[in-house]
Amino acid sequence: MAAEKNELMEKIVSLCKRRGFVFPSSEIYGGFAAVYDFGPYGVELAKNIREAWWKYMVQLREDIVGLDAAIFMHPKVWEASGHVGGFSDPLAECKECHTRVRVDHLLEEAVVAADEKMSETAINQLFSLNKERIVCPKCGKKNFTEAKSFNLLVQSNLGNFTGNLGENPVYLRGETCQGIYVNYKNVLDSVRVKMPFGIAQIGKAFRNEITARQFIFRTREFEQMEMQYFTRPEAEMDEYEKLRAYRFQFYLDMGMKAEHLRWHKHENLVFYAKEAYDIEYQFPFGFKELEGVHARGDYDLTQHAKFSGVALDYLDPITNEKYIPHIIESSVGVGRMFLAFLTEAYTEEALEGGDTRVVLKLPKKLAPVKVAVFPLMKNKPELVAKAKEVFDSLKGNMMCEFDDNGNVGKRYRRQDEIGTPYCVTVDFDTIGQGEDKTLENTVTVRDRDTMQQERVKIEELSVYLQKYFN
Amino acid sequence: MAAEKNELMEKIVSLCKRRGFVFPSSEIYGGFAAVYDFGPYGVELAKNIREAWWKYMVQLREDIVGLDAAIFMHPKVWEASGHVGGFSDPLAECKECHTRVRVDHLLEEAVVAADEKMSETAINQLFSLNKERIVCPKCGKKNFTEAKSFNLLVQSNLGNFTGNLGENPVYLRGETCQGIYVNYKNVLDSVRVKMPFGIAQIGKAFRNEITARQFIFRTREFEQMEMQYFTRPEAEMDEYEKLRAYRFQFYLDMGMKAEHLRWHKHENLVFYAKEAYDIEYQFPFGFKELEGVHARGDYDLTQHAKFSGVALDYLDPITNEKYIPHIIESSVGVGRMFLAFLTEAYTEEALEGGDTRVVLKLPKKLAPVKVAVFPLMKNKPELVAKAKEVFDSLKGNMMCEFDDNGNVGKRYRRQDEIGTPYCVTVDFDTIGQGEDKTLENTVTVRDRDTMQQERVKIEELSVYLQKYFN
Repeated sequence: MAAEKNELMEKIVSLCKRRGFVFPSSEIYGGFAAVYDFGPYGVELAKNIREAWWKYMVQLREDIVGLDAAIFMHPKVWEASGHVGGFSDPLAECKECHTRVRVDHLLEEAVVAADEKMSETAINQLFSLNKERIVCPKCGKKNFTEAKSFNLLVQSNLGNFTGNLGENPVYLRGETCQGIYVNYKNVLDSVRVKMPFGIAQIGKAFRNEITARQFIFRTREFEQMEMQYFTRPEAEMDEYEKLRAYRFQFYLDMGMKAEHLRWHKHENLVFYAKEAYDIEYQFPFGFKELEGVHARGDYDLTQHAKFSGVALDYLDPITNEKYIPHIIESSVGVGRMFLAFLTEAYTEEALEGGDTRVVLKLPKKLAPVKVAVFPLMKNKPELVAKAKEVFDSLKGNMMCEFDDNGNVGKRYRRQDEIGTPYCVTVDFDTIGQGEDKTLENTVTVRDRDTMQQERVKIEELSVYLQKYFN
Repeated sequence: MAAEKNELMEKIVSLCKRRGFVFPSSEIYGGFAAVYDFGPYGVELAKNIREAWWKYMVQLREDIVGLDAAIFMHPKVWEASGHVGGFSDPLAECKECHTRVRVDHLLEEAVVAADEKMSETAINQLFSLNKERIVCPKCGKKNFTEAKSFNLLVQSNLGNFTGNLGENPVYLRGETCQGIYVNYKNVLDSVRVKMPFGIAQIGKAFRNEITARQFIFRTREFEQMEMQYFTRPEAEMDEYEKLRAYRFQFYLDMGMKAEHLRWHKHENLVFYAKEAYDIEYQFPFGFKELEGVHARGDYDLTQHAKFSGVALDYLDPITNEKYIPHIIESSVGVGRMFLAFLTEAYTEEALEGGDTRVVLKLPKKLAPVKVAVFPLMKNKPELVAKAKEVFDSLKGNMMCEFDDNGNVGKRYRRQDEIGTPYCVTVDFDTIGQGEDKTLENTVTVRDRDTMQQERVKIEELSVYLQKYFN
């Protein structure tokens, strides 16, 4: 539980709530476990994260196309993928208070530093051996059942009109990549792609995590950004190295410090995987998986060909080679990347005079609001009218905010906390009522990070600001 | 069934499949009823639709903020909203072959032109009276059960670890707006909004439609774009008129012909509604609801205040008035708008020489690919290299495609079918090997709609093209 007491984490969670980034779901109903909603600034940050990823993974890549498969798929997809049979976490129940716990997490916290990559069988044995020492986090007793496997696929009654909910369950997807695999042939047949090529997708997935933890780091409903890359069997590992480098570079390009990132190599690979690395980020609770970059071999398409009866071989139009493509993938959660960027951006700075300012030094491209426009004073109609005019001239090109509440200093603090790169102030000079008449139709532009102000002509403002956001 | 035989509709569905806009879900498994996936061009079109809506509803509006609530909420939300008790469709079962049908649709097709807005009780009576004349669409017999109500909320076992799926069901949201209502107080408390203000959201919702129909027009999994606007009780109807005008204007601004749009006024209002209009679009199967613009009174916040026990009154900071805000809403589906824009854009033109070209005259802003770049010939390395150079210089600013397959005429046909506004060709003049040396470092830019070509300098190309997409 040490992680949850982390001070930086608490500050981030608190800022998220206070400033409208992330709200606990259904809060007026006492909340709904492990589900979160993005508030007005959170939705913009998440949107900008998706757009940055999409630009990097689709728009800039001639060899990658997008896809948006539905959350629901034919239930057989999940048999072919192995999720119906083997996608589970070890669950035990306290015999005293009936609390259900995830055994590996409890082990990790209470007994041994269990490796996240340990096999489920090994975890269950470890639990069995240590059972009488393990304390229920709810009632404090030491009386657990043996561990059993609990399937993580979330079931639903979509399209089931019998009234028997358990009958022929239809699953909410447990990962988005299956939607890519089952559309591989449709993409091949409709779009001019040639091997090697990738299909990228952003979308929600769902897992019945027994204990979801650490704010938006691990949630039952989450959004994945995945790219599956199809290659000739012989090219798999070369392409894998290229993809690893490309994905790591993404975070550096987005301004993350190299020392906050590292590679973690999986030791226990699933039987079909060739190699698996995670990009770990230094979250407030330590280095944890941010993104997975895995070489999956021909497992996925082979399974779907087998279960569907449809051939999924690729026939090379030039060499006439025929093969089941191998797949390498990159997979990262929007919520996890959101938390990583917030962690990277969260800064407290001592100001002259003893005050501290909290500032989110987000990459400018990702900032929820690009520019805030202020009239120097709220009760001067000419200032307000001119500020509205400036606001209106900018809002078509970037996300802007108009603020005339409180004094300018307070407005700066607020914009700093939501990470707004630039604040534009309309003052008496702007409207030709200041001392220096040459400043008419200019505004001050204040930089979030340096707090320096510059005087810019209104007519040049849009171009001046836009150059920072492309 | 006349609608499904509609020729234009068939052409659109076929183009969607052939050109990678929309694929039936899980097609290699025989499909999964009434679920569709967006292919490589579909995902871009849907993305551009969302962005156009978001810009119009959030970015350009000082008084509207965004939100992205999760699909899952506390189950009590759906009791408060009335969905657990009364969100249903009339269902009957064929006693012979056990096919389940939606009674109102069957009535509409077989007996009477039932009004979509008819009450469920009236529909069930009508069915009962006509039962012996109604033919099962599957087995052809006339032996149906009486109609009964079937709840449309999709149930799941998220967070349920008991193994009993029916126990304490958790719902997939049946509409996105409830996520806005339950976050109304969080938004008020964290962001500087003042009455009247709106909260906009884009996200998936799910309904257990008994018969989903007409391609992506009505699907069980769908994506809504909704804006809920909170007003003083006295201001509700004024704001409602403004919102109606604003939303209608959106479609005109996006290039839809006024004669393809009309208002439909609801005659049978739910008891709390003040007024309800739909914007109808002339789909290939006739004028049907595209978007709802409804005045909902204080019902939503009153219900949530009652069920949650949390006061949801607004205290006006200036007048000290205290009231439950009234709500007006605008609600439209991404899939439905996607189909409307495709319908509006689909054009067949006779060409000189007797050929016909199919062209998607999509608004340029919405086109999946903005610019296609071609080398005149595939087997001239200098042309290909120069074309790649041009492609690379553009791809950072807009979605581009490189194509060197077949001849230029075929490439134009293909880009016309996916609605690409501009095709750029690198020819011998471009690389200084043509007759007119003054054309070196210029390319031809061909306009989708006029098919006219212009010669543009490469260095001016990005600016030349970008002006069309802002």
